[in-house]
Amino acid sequence: MAGDGSDQRALQYEQTLMYGRYTQELGVYAKEEAARLRESGQRRSVSDRSRTLDLLEYDKGRCAKCRRLGYPYVLDAPAHDFISVCTVRCQKFLISRVGEDWIFLILLGLLMALVSWVVDFCIAICLQAQKWMYGGLDSNVFLQYLAWVTYPVVLITFSAGFTQILAPQAVGSGIPEMKTILRGVVLKEYLTFKTFVAKVIGLTCALGSGMPLGKEGPFVHIASLCAALLSKFMSLFGGIYENESRNIEMLAAACAVGVGCCFAAPIGGVLFSIEVTSTFFAVRNYWRGFFAATFSAFIFRVLAVWNRDEETITALFKTRFRLDFPFDLQELPAFAVIGIASGFGGALFVYLNRLIVQFIRKQKAINRFLMKKRLLYPALVTLLVSTLTFPPGFGQFMAGKLTQKESLVTLLDNRTWAKQGIAEEFDYIGHSQAWKHPQVNVFVTLVLFIVMKFWMSALATTIPVPCGAFMPVFVIGAAFGRLVGESMAAWFPDGIHTDGTIYPIVPGGYAVVGAAALSGAVTHTVSTAVIVFELTGQISHILPVMIAVILANAVAQSLQPSLYDSIIRIKKLPYLPELGWGHHEKYNIRVEDIMVRDVRYITLNCCYRDLQNVLLTGHLKTLALVESAESMILLGSIERAQLQSLLSQQLGRPKRLEYIRERAVAEKKRLSVMSNPGSDDGSQRVSQEVRFQISTEESTFSPVRPVALKPLKPALKRSSVVERPTEIPTSPQDNSGIALKNLFCASPETEGLEDDGDVEDDMTIREISEWEEMQLDEQVNFNNCKIDPAPFQLVERTSLHKTHTIFSLLGLDHAYVTSIGRLIGVVSLKELRKAIEGSVTVKGVKVRPPLASFRDSGTSSSENEATELHKLWDRHKSMSLPREHTPSESDEKSQ
Amino acid sequence: MAGDGSDQRALQYEQTLMYGRYTQELGVYAKEEAARLRESGQRRSVSDRSRTLDLLEYDKGRCAKCRRLGYPYVLDAPAHDFISVCTVRCQKFLISRVGEDWIFLILLGLLMALVSWVVDFCIAICLQAQKWMYGGLDSNVFLQYLAWVTYPVVLITFSAGFTQILAPQAVGSGIPEMKTILRGVVLKEYLTFKTFVAKVIGLTCALGSGMPLGKEGPFVHIASLCAALLSKFMSLFGGIYENESRNIEMLAAACAVGVGCCFAAPIGGVLFSIEVTSTFFAVRNYWRGFFAATFSAFIFRVLAVWNRDEETITALFKTRFRLDFPFDLQELPAFAVIGIASGFGGALFVYLNRLIVQFIRKQKAINRFLMKKRLLYPALVTLLVSTLTFPPGFGQFMAGKLTQKESLVTLLDNRTWAKQGIAEEFDYIGHSQAWKHPQVNVFVTLVLFIVMKFWMSALATTIPVPCGAFMPVFVIGAAFGRLVGESMAAWFPDGIHTDGTIYPIVPGGYAVVGAAALSGAVTHTVSTAVIVFELTGQISHILPVMIAVILANAVAQSLQPSLYDSIIRIKKLPYLPELGWGHHEKYNIRVEDIMVRDVRYITLNCCYRDLQNVLLTGHLKTLALVESAESMILLGSIERAQLQSLLSQQLGRPKRLEYIRERAVAEKKRLSVMSNPGSDDGSQRVSQEVRFQISTEESTFSPVRPVALKPLKPALKRSSVVERPTEIPTSPQDNSGIALKNLFCASPETEGLEDDGDVEDDMTIREISEWEEMQLDEQVNFNNCKIDPAPFQLVERTSLHKTHTIFSLLGLDHAYVTSIGRLIGVVSLKELRKAIEGSVTVKGVKVRPPLASFRDSGTSSSENEATELHKLWDRHKSMSLPREHTPSESDEKSQ
Repeated sequence: MAGDGSDQRALQYEQTLMYGRYTQELGVYAKEEAARLRESGQRRSVSDRSRTLDLLEYDKGRCAKCRRLGYPYVLDAPAHDFISVCTVRCQKFLISRVGEDWIFLILLGLLMALVSWVVDFCIAICLQAQKWMYGGLDSNVFLQYLAWVTYPVVLITFSAGFTQILAPQAVGSGIPEMKTILRGVVLKEYLTFKTFVAKVIGLTCALGSGMPLGKEGPFVHIASLCAALLSKFMSLFGGIYENESRNIEMLAAACAVGVGCCFAAPIGGVLFSIEVTSTFFAVRNYWRGFFAATFSAFIFRVLAVWNRDEETITALFKTRFRLDFPFDLQELPAFAVIGIASGFGGALFVYLNRLIVQFIRKQKAINRFLMKKRLLYPALVTLLVSTLTFPPGFGQFMAGKLTQKESLVTLLDNRTWAKQGIAEEFDYIGHSQAWKHPQVNVFVTLVLFIVMKFWMSALATTIPVPCGAFMPVFVIGAAFGRLVGESMAAWFPDGIHTDGTIYPIVPGGYAVVGAAALSGAVTHTVSTAVIVFELTGQISHILPVMIAVILANAVAQSLQPSLYDSIIRIKKLPYLPELGWGHHEKYNIRVEDIMVRDVRYITLNCCYRDLQNVLLTGHLKTLALVESAESMILLGSIERAQLQSLLSQQLGRPKRLEYIRERAVAEKKRLSVMSNPGSDDGSQRVSQEVRFQISTEESTFSPVRPVALKPLKPALKRSSVVERPTEIPTSPQDNSGIALKNLFCASPETEGLEDDGDVEDDMTIREISEWEEMQLDEQVNFNNCKIDPAPFQLVERTSLHKTHTIFSLLGLDHAYVTSIGRLIGVVSLKELRKAIEGSVTVKGVKVRPPLASFRDSGTSSSENEATELHKLWDRHKSMSLPREHTPSESDEKSQ
Repeated sequence: MAGDGSDQRALQYEQTLMYGRYTQELGVYAKEEAARLRESGQRRSVSDRSRTLDLLEYDKGRCAKCRRLGYPYVLDAPAHDFISVCTVRCQKFLISRVGEDWIFLILLGLLMALVSWVVDFCIAICLQAQKWMYGGLDSNVFLQYLAWVTYPVVLITFSAGFTQILAPQAVGSGIPEMKTILRGVVLKEYLTFKTFVAKVIGLTCALGSGMPLGKEGPFVHIASLCAALLSKFMSLFGGIYENESRNIEMLAAACAVGVGCCFAAPIGGVLFSIEVTSTFFAVRNYWRGFFAATFSAFIFRVLAVWNRDEETITALFKTRFRLDFPFDLQELPAFAVIGIASGFGGALFVYLNRLIVQFIRKQKAINRFLMKKRLLYPALVTLLVSTLTFPPGFGQFMAGKLTQKESLVTLLDNRTWAKQGIAEEFDYIGHSQAWKHPQVNVFVTLVLFIVMKFWMSALATTIPVPCGAFMPVFVIGAAFGRLVGESMAAWFPDGIHTDGTIYPIVPGGYAVVGAAALSGAVTHTVSTAVIVFELTGQISHILPVMIAVILANAVAQSLQPSLYDSIIRIKKLPYLPELGWGHHEKYNIRVEDIMVRDVRYITLNCCYRDLQNVLLTGHLKTLALVESAESMILLGSIERAQLQSLLSQQLGRPKRLEYIRERAVAEKKRLSVMSNPGSDDGSQRVSQEVRFQISTEESTFSPVRPVALKPLKPALKRSSVVERPTEIPTSPQDNSGIALKNLFCASPETEGLEDDGDVEDDMTIREISEWEEMQLDEQVNFNNCKIDPAPFQLVERTSLHKTHTIFSLLGLDHAYVTSIGRLIGVVSLKELRKAIEGSVTVKGVKVRPPLASFRDSGTSSSENEATELHKLWDRHKSMSLPREHTPSESDEKSQ
């Protein structure tokens, strides 16, 4: 079973060209996996608890030695000597005492700061090497071109290949996956050491190539990986590191650390990670993020100081804008324009990115070709991009010489590049010179830069390497802001302020605003505002930035999903869409409008045949357990796997062998009492007869049990599954273990089991089939079955809004709808998603129009409730003992 | 009933000397109120929904006229003419279409910015007036003193008196109340127009007096008031403004606006309000806060520009620190020291504040005296504080001349006041001169300022006027930071940096760090860091500030609750304490350890007497409805009020009169058929006999119904309530309507009902009592009863951690614990609070030690489950019809 389980457990991850895609089953798989983990977690919890108690008791100063025998599970083998026990215990004691959250967060921060710094350092070396090669070959343009182009192609190809081989899950940003994981879905492969290595090395190579790729998203993933691995490592020392909800809290903190140590922006990091990954945020976890991110950012910057890159701790992209008069009130419209334009731009970017993926996926021929030669696509894209940025070529018109970081530094420069429309002949020191072209205006350079980088970034982020899109978008936004700023500066050379003093316009400020607005629009976050303040070290433009970011968000959110949500859809990760803003219909849709009324259920007194039917006709992961088909009182829910094991126990070979043994014993007894035949033989024959009668009756498949009175339509139709039951009557010869085979198709160990056993299996196929039919008619014994005794329940009139809140708060994937204890429907993530998308995709066809919920539910449903209640009550009355006052009641009525 | 209801609805708010206190009932009251609102909300929801639909349909362009008759509820009277209908409809259409969230938030932001600016303006005028009086009388010190002292005393006394008379709820900060409201408890009186007026005017006067009071807390409250009133106003135009969950969302946004427009700090405002008021935060509401707070902060600062106070939009307390080298790495230990010291200081402040309140409350004599002369306490405190700050007196040693704002500006100054320990003779321009004293060192002045202001602020915030404590604490923190900074500057006159360049230490930076750290420690928030950046307009000190704030929080949170939580406890508001950090025992306590096992319940087939018993012996607000006492299957919960009305219907006068009427008819019939006496008369006598027999049997109070088999201990014992049932048998003469009277003591309309009615009530007291006994024995008809069909359920093994999460997420006040549908316990806020506090108040006695949950729940409880399930199953089998395969089953076993 274990081997099979782990085989099945391999994620059904389909490696496609760019992002990779999940076969439809992922949602189902993930839930199964989550359930499995939960179950094993529950099993572990007992030992967990006793272990913690152990620690607490140890604290009271008892001798470790005398307790050694009582806790053998700590030791791998009894051969361990006394000293090692003591050491382990002391370590555990220390770790459990000194506030393990702190230690964990500090370790995480430290680790991530180191990783971030090392990655940055390697990237810088890579980029320097490229520049050095390019510079050294300045005698021959062709050689220069070759060097310029080959270098990134090699790096990207290596990165893509390495990632594909080691861990294909490391591809892309990682934020969508983290969002899904924090939503409660377990994507185990995303948090392994392999993925960590692949992501770090792949990211370094990808960014070292100088392509327009970002580091933020991968860092969120890397930090989460770090946290998961660290957690696993710490759990070796015992303590509470195995608690699942604690791990989720730590993962949330890790996301903050990822952003924080990437930009040295602790506050922005925390906020960004919250906005990007969470739906509901527990304020009590807030401090974790702040603590870890601050520590991480601090170490990250201290490393720079120690490395003599900086004199002291300052911002990453320090600006030096005027403090006394950062901007004039009358410049605000220009900032608002940046915001709105960025909103459209951001939506366009997301759309373009998705379009590229979908286009290449749809072109079957291209797709098939590229799938065969996996590394061709990255190489081709890199070739195209780097050819276009070749500085002596087209790159001269778009500052192609500059790396991403250099471009950003120059764009945030606090001097004005242009005056009166002509590039001013100021001292273009350092990198700023790249923006100046002898023939072409600065404006043209900027426009070309924006346009080219825009599609290049959208294209580059589809390459299957670990990469994010935040930084490229940030740079494009800064360039756009700069463009507007330079235009304003050209338009008002002496500034706008009218009262005497001349305050010239600062185009750098516009660049800051643009960067925040465009990145905010693409990611649908407001906290990019905070990130730019922390990145630039100046907060003087707070109001323009906030206004632009909010406007950009308003525009972008009404046009497109965020980049991360878009990728979630492309990757088909299980998700729950957000409720849009301002769509107040959500307050009017009720659960009764969206719920599935045909609930698959099993009753407390059902027999195994019912179980079999339910399992064969549907493939829901959990089934409702109701008291009886008449009362429909919800008692709990049972997982499919539990039912399968119940059924396999009932129909399995061990049970049949036992039956054979028993029959043999009975036969022997019959033979031994053959001397006095008569009554005994007669009873035997009668029972035989009865049995046959029943089995033939049952094989006609016309059960008259109350359960089957309501024909159960499968909630999720699937032809392949629905057709199966019909196979049974058509091939009665092949009936041996057919029920089991239907359930565990392609499970080899069922066959394996049939081979062992010391009792000879002399039953004919017909006998087996009879025996199985008989077994199926027994009532189910739920004693050894794990029942979830309190599945989540909703009421018919719960609004969609509230349902969404509850689902996302508690990470549910389904909830039963009950009315006074009676099961009347079920709502799963799927229905909810449909309902939300139906009402969000505006105006047109709604899945359930608001009219559907327009019935006087206030009166009719309460009446319903009353009658249903009445039924229950009547039923109860009929079965309860006659009470002493019943005559008086009837008496009174007769009066 | 309505009159009575509104009488009862008056909040049981006990006006005490300082904060006001709630009689213990508040929690109960609030829940009742919440239930009432919810119910009325449900009733409204139908019309709400049809109204919205109306709008949607209207959109399709039908004529408004022809639909006029169909929607009469829109019109107040049929006399309204066609034009007004059109106008109203157009308005409604516009409002419902143009994205009402935006409009609402913009209006809110605008309003709050105006309020904030006007309040600031008035405060500034008040303070100027005081200065002018003080300055004009410089010939005579005594007159100067009188003026200096009288002015604040008059203002504070007026503020206290005005608030007391108009709306005592306006006293204090308002943040604790908002926290409670956002937690889901309805405190209606806190959001009325009266409170708004009282708060705004009271606050202006209180701050105008120059006492060390803050404006932040009250502004959170004022913004929420604004939002509530605006919501009410907008609901006049129809639309979705009546939706409760939407209102909560808007209140959360309003809190952000309050902080945002107070400090012109949109980001900090949003974060601070989240940290201070929420436990779980919905990221989808994030934008609301940002949008409204940004708009509000923008307008607030634009007003300053228009008023020519400022040239352009800048920070409120702009600093001008060096950008290139804000601090050296080696200064970080000093910042850490500030953080830790601030942590202790913050905890001390909270403790001191609570101590003062509790001290005065305990001193009965003082308390009684001060309660009589309510305005004496504020006047005395003001007199004391203003005497000590009198500039020619003691005030000269503590810069008493400066207002709060002036002190803060001087403390954040970027020049160094002292070098080598001696006050440097630099040009003390403007207000900075106040810190310089001819005889006394600057250090002494600062120390005196800190010490004096510390207790003064703690004392002043207990005055019953609208006031906050944030700003005073902020100033004290800045002074402490300045002290450390000046010391550092004196210690290292040439700065710490070793590499050639001299970078002198900036004491102003230390002041920023100190301010953030101390205010963070008092309020238990990290976002004060963001607030200081926004207030000063500089973010260069981000790392020191973050480090200091986090350290301060760590220290303060481990010592004391936050100031707001402390006030919540003082005011006895219903609250749920936070889970502390690092206490991993919470993961080990289970619901089964804290739940109340004696659940009060009613069964589906109970009779009215059971209802009466349950109602008399307990006072829980909701009661569980189970199927029967044997099965204990939870069907739902019923509110107490519903049961009371059921009982009153059954025992009420109308029913009795009906009975009399019926009896009279029967009597008449008997008289008319007197001609043929015999069988009819006999049956009548028999029925009479039976009735008497039952009623006497019942009056002995020995019910043998299954419900009473388990004696129900009241979950919340209260002698006055428990004693009541014994009254019934002792005074059988007074039995008329006694059951009702017991339930509705002091409800006048029950008496009023007795007076009308056309049938003569000729029943004797004995007859009435008999009739009532008879009525009580009837089975309850739940048809007209509102049942909550899906109360929240937990499982025995749910951890405390998860329970806390669910309670705070969903704002529950109780949850039933079920095991496979069977009710086995109940957990209310009270138990949860006890358990958390027990485990949080460290080490000592825990309410339920972790050991309590150390039983092998993994095995035993599942066994339990199984046996319980078995019972259910057996029961079900016995009542279900014999099935056709049962013989085969038994047959097989016999084999």
